[in-house]
Formats: sequence, C-alpha cells, structure tokens
Amino acid sequence: MAIKPSIPKGTRDFSSVEIAKRNYLKNILQITFEEYGFSPIETPSFEKLETLTGVYGDEGDRLVFKILNSGEKIKRADFNAYNNGENYKFIKSISEKALRYDLTVPFARYVVQHQNELTFPFRRYQIQPVWRADRPQRGRFQEFIQCDADIVGNRSLWQEVEVLHLYDRIFNKLRLKDVNLRINHRNILVAIFTLFEDESRIYDFTVTLDKLNKIGKKEVFKELIGKNFHSKLLDILEKMFGFQENFQNKIKYLKSLFTNNQKGLEGISELEFIINSFKLSSSDSVVLKFDFSLARGLNYYTGMIVEVDSPENVNIGSIGGGGRYDDLTSVFGMDEMSGVGVSFGFERIFLVMDQLGLFPDNLSYSTKVLFINFGDSAAEIAYSYMMKLRDKNVSSELYPTAAKINKQMAYANSKGIKNVILMGSNEISKKVFDLKDMDSGKQTTYSLSKLTNLF
Amino acid sequence: MAIKPSIPKGTRDFSSVEIAKRNYLKNILQITFEEYGFSPIETPSFEKLETLTGVYGDEGDRLVFKILNSGEKIKRADFNAYNNGENYKFIKSISEKALRYDLTVPFARYVVQHQNELTFPFRRYQIQPVWRADRPQRGRFQEFIQCDADIVGNRSLWQEVEVLHLYDRIFNKLRLKDVNLRINHRNILVAIFTLFEDESRIYDFTVTLDKLNKIGKKEVFKELIGKNFHSKLLDILEKMFGFQENFQNKIKYLKSLFTNNQKGLEGISELEFIINSFKLSSSDSVVLKFDFSLARGLNYYTGMIVEVDSPENVNIGSIGGGGRYDDLTSVFGMDEMSGVGVSFGFERIFLVMDQLGLFPDNLSYSTKVLFINFGDSAAEIAYSYMMKLRDKNVSSELYPTAAKINKQMAYANSKGIKNVILMGSNEISKKVFDLKDMDSGKQTTYSLSKLTNLF
Repeated sequence: MAIKPSIPKGTRDFSSVEIAKRNYLKNILQITFEEYGFSPIETPSFEKLETLTGVYGDEGDRLVFKILNSGEKIKRADFNAYNNGENYKFIKSISEKALRYDLTVPFARYVVQHQNELTFPFRRYQIQPVWRADRPQRGRFQEFIQCDADIVGNRSLWQEVEVLHLYDRIFNKLRLKDVNLRINHRNILVAIFTLFEDESRIYDFTVTLDKLNKIGKKEVFKELIGKNFHSKLLDILEKMFGFQENFQNKIKYLKSLFTNNQKGLEGISELEFIINSFKLSSSDSVVLKFDFSLARGLNYYTGMIVEVDSPENVNIGSIGGGGRYDDLTSVFGMDEMSGVGVSFGFERIFLVMDQLGLFPDNLSYSTKVLFINFGDSAAEIAYSYMMKLRDKNVSSELYPTAAKINKQMAYANSKGIKNVILMGSNEISKKVFDLKDMDSGKQTTYSLSKLTNLF
Repeated sequence: MAIKPSIPKGTRDFSSVEIAKRNYLKNILQITFEEYGFSPIETPSFEKLETLTGVYGDEGDRLVFKILNSGEKIKRADFNAYNNGENYKFIKSISEKALRYDLTVPFARYVVQHQNELTFPFRRYQIQPVWRADRPQRGRFQEFIQCDADIVGNRSLWQEVEVLHLYDRIFNKLRLKDVNLRINHRNILVAIFTLFEDESRIYDFTVTLDKLNKIGKKEVFKELIGKNFHSKLLDILEKMFGFQENFQNKIKYLKSLFTNNQKGLEGISELEFIINSFKLSSSDSVVLKFDFSLARGLNYYTGMIVEVDSPENVNIGSIGGGGRYDDLTSVFGMDEMSGVGVSFGFERIFLVMDQLGLFPDNLSYSTKVLFINFGDSAAEIAYSYMMKLRDKNVSSELYPTAAKINKQMAYANSKGIKNVILMGSNEISKKVFDLKDMDSGKQTTYSLSKLTNLF
C-alpha cells in the first residue's frame, strides 16, 4: 500500500514563495553583519554526542536529538543500563552523534579547535538550522533557523556598542520601528541585591523578577515577600520602578546607593559609556531602555545584558537577546575567552514582519517571460530567442508542448508570469512577435529585432 | 577534564574563506536555475523513517542516519527483536525519524503532498545538505550538499533539451571547459540487447558495461563472454565502439538494426530531436556525446539518460547525471508522474574548480576599512565616520582598543583589510585623516569631508 505522504510534526516544507521571504530576511542579516566586519562560519549539522552533553542542563540533554549508530555499532546496545533505568548510559551505547542544538556550543568548539587560524578579536556570524525535540506548537518548531553574531577575544566596550548597533541597523533595514532594547548590567543587579541579601540567593530572586511581563508588578512583589526577601530591598525595587524610563534618574539614585560598591559603580559606568556611544550613531529604529530588573541568563553573562521585545502590536515575546560573557570556552580547555554576542530570533522576526506586512510585495522567483509554443518549427525559433533572453539574465520559459493557447495562458497566470510572447509561423515570417501583458491584458506587436531589448 | 574539541569523521567546519567559494558556486547554480524558470523548494532535514525506508535498497537502508526517539519513547525498545537479530524491527522501536539521504525521495513526497498547490509542468531546484553513514574518505563526506533540478508533469522532449542546457550554461559561467555530457536512451540499449537476448538478463549485461571506464574494453568483452552473452550481440558492440564519436554513423547503423523494433526507433528519434535542438543554442562549454553503452540507473530511467564526466585533467569521476523517468511518485500513491531531472555533484564540482583554479581571486568576506583607535575621544569621532561608511554598505571596523599602532596594523594585515584610516586628535583638529593602503604601504592625507566618497 502506498504511504500517505507527510512530514514529522514540528518540521516544514518551504515553497518558493516562502523561501523568497526567508531569503529576503536572511540576506539583510548577512549584508549588515558583513558591513560590520563580521564573517560567516558554518559548523556540521551533527557534533559528537559528548560535545553536546552536560552543557545545556538536564532539560537540554533531553531535547538534544541523538543519532543512532549505524552498521555493526548498533549491536553494542547496553541492556543492563537500560534495565537499570540508566537512560544516558543506554543512549551512549547506541549513539555517538547528536544534532546541533544551538550555535553557541559549536561556536565555542570552533574557536578552540581553530584558535591558531583565527585573528582576534574574532567577529563571526552564523545562520544555520538547529534541532530540538521540543513539543511542537504555534511558532515553535523542531527544526528552525538560529542567527548569532559574536565578537570574542576582547573586553573593549566598543564591542557592546557594535552589537547593539547591529540590532538598530538591521531593524532599520527591515523597516521594523520602535523596537525596545532593554539593557542591564549584571553588576548592577548583583550590587542592588547584595546591599541586603547574600549573593547565593540571587537566582531565586531573578526567577521571580523575570515574571514581571507575565504576572505584573503586584504579583511579583507578592511573590518576593513570600520568599522572605529583605523589605529594604523591596523598597528600592519599588522606588526604581517609579522612575519609569528615565535613565539619568535611575543612575543618579543607584550611584547614591553604591558609594561603597566598586563593582556596582563599574556596572553603572560601563552602561553609561555604552548608552552614550550608542546614541552617537543610532538610527531611531530601536529604543534603548535601562531595565534594572532584566536578569537574562545571569549565570552565563558577566557584563551588559540585552533583551529585544517584539513591537507592542505583535505580542510574540522576545525576538532577540545577548550580552557580555567571560567564559565561552573553558569546557573545551581554553580559559579567559571573553566576548559579547547577540542573537536574532529568525523565526519570530519572520512572523512579526509577516504580521506587519513588512515584506516587499514583489518577492518571488516567478519566471518573467513565457514563450507560447506553436509547434516544433516555430518553437525552435522561439527557443533560440528565449535563450538570448536568458543570456541577458531574464528568467524565461518556452511552454513545452503546442497545447491550446488557453491552457498555455492559464499556465502563465498560475505561475504569475507577467509577459507572454506569441510568435507563430505567421509572425515569424513577418519578423514580428506579439507581447501580451498579463496584468493589463494588452497585446502589442513588436519587431523581432527588438525582442532582447524589451526586458 | 576538558573535552578536546573535534568533530565527527566525515563532517567539516567551514571558514569564511571556504564559505565565500562555496557561495560563489551555489550562487551561479541558483541564478541559472532561476533564469531557466526553476524555483527553489526546501524540505525538512529529517523525514519520517517510513518515508526513507525501502526506497534506497538494502545498502541505502543501512546508510540512512536514524534519529533516536526522545523522552519516554526511548522506553519502548524492542529487545526481543534485538535478540532475534531483527535489526530493522529493533530500530523501528526506538526511531521514528531519519535524516535526508538524497533530494529525490523528499521531492517525490513533496510533489504528492502539495500537488494541489503546484502548477504543472513543475520546475523545481533544490540545494540542500544530505547525510549518509558512509565510510568517510577523500572527497566523500557524511554531510554534503546535493543539487537537483527537475521538471515534472510533462513528457515533452523540450524538457530534456532544457536540462542539458542547464549543464551547458552553468559550466560556461563557471568557466569549466570541454565537459563531456554522455547521453543515451534506455530504448536503444534495450533494443540492441533484445535482438539476441531476453530483457530479463539486461541488468547483468549493464553491470559489466558500466565497468568500461574502469577496466577497459578488452576486460569488458572478456567478462561478457564469460557471462555467455550471444556472440552476435558482442559483434554489434565491437562495431559500435569502432564508430568512435560519430553520432550519424552510429544512428545510421542502429536504424538498420532496428527496422522492426518500434521502441528502438523511437529512442533514436528522441535522441535526434534532443541533440539537434540542444545544438541550436549551446555555448560550447560541453561536448554532447552519444554513448550507447551508458546504462546509468536503468531500472529508474525510462528515456534519455545523461552522465557528466569531470574534465580529463581532473580524474574525479562523474560530476553529474540524470535522465527521464516515468514514475517518480507511485510509492506515495500518485501514478504517471513523468519527469526529467539532472543533478550537479556540488562537492565534486567544487573540487574540480579548486584544482583548476577557477574561483575568482577576490572572493572573501574581509573588512574593507579599518579605523585605528587612538583612545576614547578620537575613537568616538572615528566611530561616527565609520558608521557613515557602513551606511554606504562599506564593510568597516574600528579597532576596539587604543593598542599600539603596530598591533592594530598587524590585525589589518592578518584579516586582509586593504584600507587603514588614521585619525588621531591631531588630524581631527585639522579636519584631515590619513589613509594607508596596506598593499602598497603608501599613506595619503585627505580632507575629512572626502572620507565617505573615497570607497
């Protein structure tokens, strides 16, 4: 019996119309990265299982797609491990490779493996698919594109300015307006917290803070009180929230709090440099906001952190984020590799643009000119003229059979081909052809010698 | 202990230099396909295991990479099957997905699944990676790019002409000369064979014929005699080989043999149409040769078959091939889907071009202009000028720290940056800057107002 054709849940086929849109977005990302001195790298779709194990946490270990060993190696399955419930040991006995889960770990592996070939500070971008065994749902796929840009091997704050400008310029080119970039600095958050609490509890604190957008300020305070955080800490939060978006007021207040806290003051001065330098050349596509409650990935990031919100009228959550990290590569035996990086949520930005109608109308791969087929001897001549158009990079086709004109016209319509050329033996003998504009329906006669100059 | 970073055998990291070359090749393929009215599709990296099982033969079933089920599903491993040596049953109990093994089966699945959205004849191209659990060796990878172009849903011979012209135009644009396209027709091979033998033995016959390039004519005949093929059949072969490359002589001789064989005569007349129509507009990059001994995939192809040899001075075997088939989709329940398709051996064409030095010299993603960093206040002004260059699509960077000039120059050298701009506070106060050409070493002073017009 024939198989009913379908694809795995969470994966997608792409038609040429969808590819045209995806390539439009991808192309703007690439071009801008390259203007900023970033160059592309690509890593294999699968890495050694050990490279991808233990670096994404338990959840990640579960969501990494493992590839079954092939050939004789499948015969080494460890059933004892299986029977003892030692899942990972069992998996290791039948799998040595796993599909790329993100671009960060392969990038870290790449930097260490190729360190002697690279020029530091190393600016790379990478746009490749990743795979996750996540439960598929709207906007969440098992195969999707990630897009990262990083500068590693240098601690200059100009690098932070650079990656924020990437957001600004790329959103500007995409015609995406009023995008909020919320930024914070790890030191500031830690300094506020450790005024009254021990740093060891900060993770618990930020878990609640992170819920701000979801549950609102009131519920956040309720939860923080429930967790017994110091009342003076909550007073400061309250006050800071009251400052709204005024950067200077927040900074002034924080400086007064941090008089004895060198790290806190450093955090402030770094943010001041970043924000002031950013403003020198920004294009107004993004709004930079200091959000002292932003806590994104606090155990990985060590300096500035940034999160990009989708525009207010499209409620799809974060469409990007990143920050400064100090330890990209120690898991691969290379210490002190500091860097700053941002990611662009390719699939979500795509959805936002689609929803806001920001893709140009004329994106497509459709053929420009169709030559009607009037049978072999006329078709031969039509074919040779078509080849001349192709040599001038004009996308053209000859209808393959001498079918009824209506059928050939329907083909042009269905494929969105604007120009149809009719040259039967009659026209050819008179050295002319007819051009039908499929939009207007208008048909015009031209001399054959004009044909290649018309498009 | 830190993991020593490495990647699985048969996979590759790509640096920006390699990507630049690969994109050059990919871009010419894409542009030409589009000129010819082909539009791209993309299918998921993995398909359902059942879609990829039983369609590639036993060897293929073994080489398809299977993906281990995740989460709770791993607990359904069928140990009885395992203990009974029922490998596939065991694999099916722990795997439901497999990585794309070629582009043909996903394309067939796509055509059936999306038949109501497509316009036939449907011209599609597809350039995507495929994965095979093959033993890695020089030029053979576990992950590599495939590139196919097909026209399905129509039997017109103009389609055969189209795909042969694709080879011609693409090799012409790649500056690859004297590429042999060997073509044949299934009917001709069958007609010769069935003059003296039963068609059921033809596979055995073609297996030996296919060794011609490897073992030479003498050994081929020895093997055919050993297999007891009719001596008159061998006489005909001998005579046909004697005709060398003369198409007309071969055709004339075959016509005399096929007087009563309608299918054989049809095969001849199809090849005549294809070859004559092709010659009307060919660019001389390829040499079309009638090779009646070509037997490529005889149980799949039903009409013209074609195979592309690598240029004589690069001995790397076939760099492409294809033909007319009549049954792309019946495994998915759709009959009578005839088509013609060709594939381009992306990785091998890449190697040929590399070996022949056909990639342009200036392919790279390197930054065009580096601004030397003379400390924060000068750097601020340099940064704003750099942003103006970027807005004009000139790839530029500011060195991130005020390091010693030598170090900054070394960075430019190492990254292949041709233009270095020096503007310290001294130059800025005079409204000038220095431009150093890193190729010639020449340094020139310009007015600041000229800066954005220089590149």
